[in-house]
Amino acid sequence: MKLFLAPALLAFSSAAIAQDAPDPPTPASIIAAAPAADWRPIDPADLLVMTLAPDRDGNPRQVVIQLMPAPFSQGWVGNIRALAKAHWWDGTSVYRVVDNWVAQWGDGEDDEAKAKPLPEGLREVPESEYLTRLPVLTDAAVRGPISRTLDSDPYRVQPDFFQGWPIARLLPGQPIVAVDAQGRPIPDPPGELAGPVHCYGSVGVARDTETTGTGSELYAVIGHAPRQLDRNIAVVGRVIEGIEHLSTLPRGQGEAGVYDDAALRVPIVSVRLGNEVSYLPQPHFEYLASDSGSFARYVEVRANRNDAFYKVPAGGIDVCNVQVPIRRVMSE
Amino acid sequence: MKLFLAPALLAFSSAAIAQDAPDPPTPASIIAAAPAADWRPIDPADLLVMTLAPDRDGNPRQVVIQLMPAPFSQGWVGNIRALAKAHWWDGTSVYRVVDNWVAQWGDGEDDEAKAKPLPEGLREVPESEYLTRLPVLTDAAVRGPISRTLDSDPYRVQPDFFQGWPIARLLPGQPIVAVDAQGRPIPDPPGELAGPVHCYGSVGVARDTETTGTGSELYAVIGHAPRQLDRNIAVVGRVIEGIEHLSTLPRGQGEAGVYDDAALRVPIVSVRLGNEVSYLPQPHFEYLASDSGSFARYVEVRANRNDAFYKVPAGGIDVCNVQVPIRRVMSE
Repeated sequence: MKLFLAPALLAFSSAAIAQDAPDPPTPASIIAAAPAADWRPIDPADLLVMTLAPDRDGNPRQVVIQLMPAPFSQGWVGNIRALAKAHWWDGTSVYRVVDNWVAQWGDGEDDEAKAKPLPEGLREVPESEYLTRLPVLTDAAVRGPISRTLDSDPYRVQPDFFQGWPIARLLPGQPIVAVDAQGRPIPDPPGELAGPVHCYGSVGVARDTETTGTGSELYAVIGHAPRQLDRNIAVVGRVIEGIEHLSTLPRGQGEAGVYDDAALRVPIVSVRLGNEVSYLPQPHFEYLASDSGSFARYVEVRANRNDAFYKVPAGGIDVCNVQVPIRRVMSE
Repeated sequence: MKLFLAPALLAFSSAAIAQDAPDPPTPASIIAAAPAADWRPIDPADLLVMTLAPDRDGNPRQVVIQLMPAPFSQGWVGNIRALAKAHWWDGTSVYRVVDNWVAQWGDGEDDEAKAKPLPEGLREVPESEYLTRLPVLTDAAVRGPISRTLDSDPYRVQPDFFQGWPIARLLPGQPIVAVDAQGRPIPDPPGELAGPVHCYGSVGVARDTETTGTGSELYAVIGHAPRQLDRNIAVVGRVIEGIEHLSTLPRGQGEAGVYDDAALRVPIVSVRLGNEVSYLPQPHFEYLASDSGSFARYVEVRANRNDAFYKVPAGGIDVCNVQVPIRRVMSE
């Protein structure tokens, strides 16, 4: 009696992929068959490597975060680069974990008088930067099949992918409810506005009710996609390796899931940009290009599983369940 | 600097709810204002209480699962009741944990010759029971607002709620792909067919590719809703308390996330129906009735947050992000 559901495909090593594409195709077979040209490198300078204190058994814990590419969320991403260069997170902690919600880290000090001073030069980013104008959407030849599969979204947007990231496009005529800085409704937002979305593993900027946050306090989503946060909080990256070091942490018992006992906080040893880690080789990852034919086929098959295990293909998929393939590239 | 996102509302104690409904309303204020008549009791006989071995610090670990009500998945639910009455899970284990996917328990033995014998009389449930006919849908007066909010689903179904459970209705004319027991396509399924959906915390029946599973091997979803499993695997319940005892377990490093070292398996001390636990009082829970006005308002507000923290209401919500309110009722 075999009892195993297919495991989720969030990140994987190429060694684990079967080389024979079965018929019908599976997400794994499409990934295995993807030509090298369909994979794009992730610049180590666009990674954050967060080293937590070893666990109680002495096992190392490292979390790798990919930063959001331009033109999205770049005000906050710039702050985050500055914070990493200043080694600001060294000695801070993971201080809040809520089941089916987030794991949050940074200084975690509510009292401004006691808070760790921030480096100079951080931007105060306006809410208007939750959205950006996209100069070019994905290639039309690829848009076709992806668009068919992703044409329905409960959050009243057009889902899309941009350089390997799930995003949401606001379309004119869609029943979007948007407000400007004064709280006045914007009945019909212009057509090229788009923003990132909150999925499992997304990294966002914690904030108070008055500001959009600097980026010093970050969280990773460890549950069902909290899409109600889209356009309300800046998404600045995603965990691409080691999310289990956040998702398995004990849930906080204090207010809003904060660790009420400071001893429960998980010390952050260091956070470095991937090109500034103190060891070699630097971390190298690749993503399956979202404007590639392989990606279009991958989305189609994720939405229409009909391999041996699946009896009824869904016929569609939500943008956060697509799970863009990302793999670590082993050094020679 | 306040840095806290609102915590997820999956289950909560009534003591934690603010009694003053602020303006504009929040999910918490609507729950706090819900009259007693809008809460429905969950019969202890419809609960499974799973007691895991204490953690390494000696803390007790108990997981409470609500079984799926009729008419959904009752073939498997009947088996599960029989397995609990036979104390079949006592001495088995949680043997598989995959990040953003599932935690799975039971015998976990792939070799049929070594597998723990099942009690007699379990049903072999056909795939046709993944769907059922609903005699009555939710009240029309309530359907209106909920339907507006939930009218768009990426999985090509009409989301709905039934006795406090998220479900999917198949509608004639929708581009549903369904097959009968012989694998022949059913191009236009009749209008009253409906089935449960896979959300965070859902409990499903692990199976091989040939059968639908007996219910002896179960899993709980600990990540983004794997809706591609809907109508492919039986959903038989949901974790309503203690999911952190599953979601924080170490991820398995063996094939498909199985613990390759048997010592990592988490022993299951016992699984009992809630009315057969060996202590008093029995566990009592209530859910916010999905045919109540309070629930309709709750869905509406979850989909259109415009309290102090939220700047832009989403205008919609996905069925798994609604999170039906469930609360433990404290005994006198």
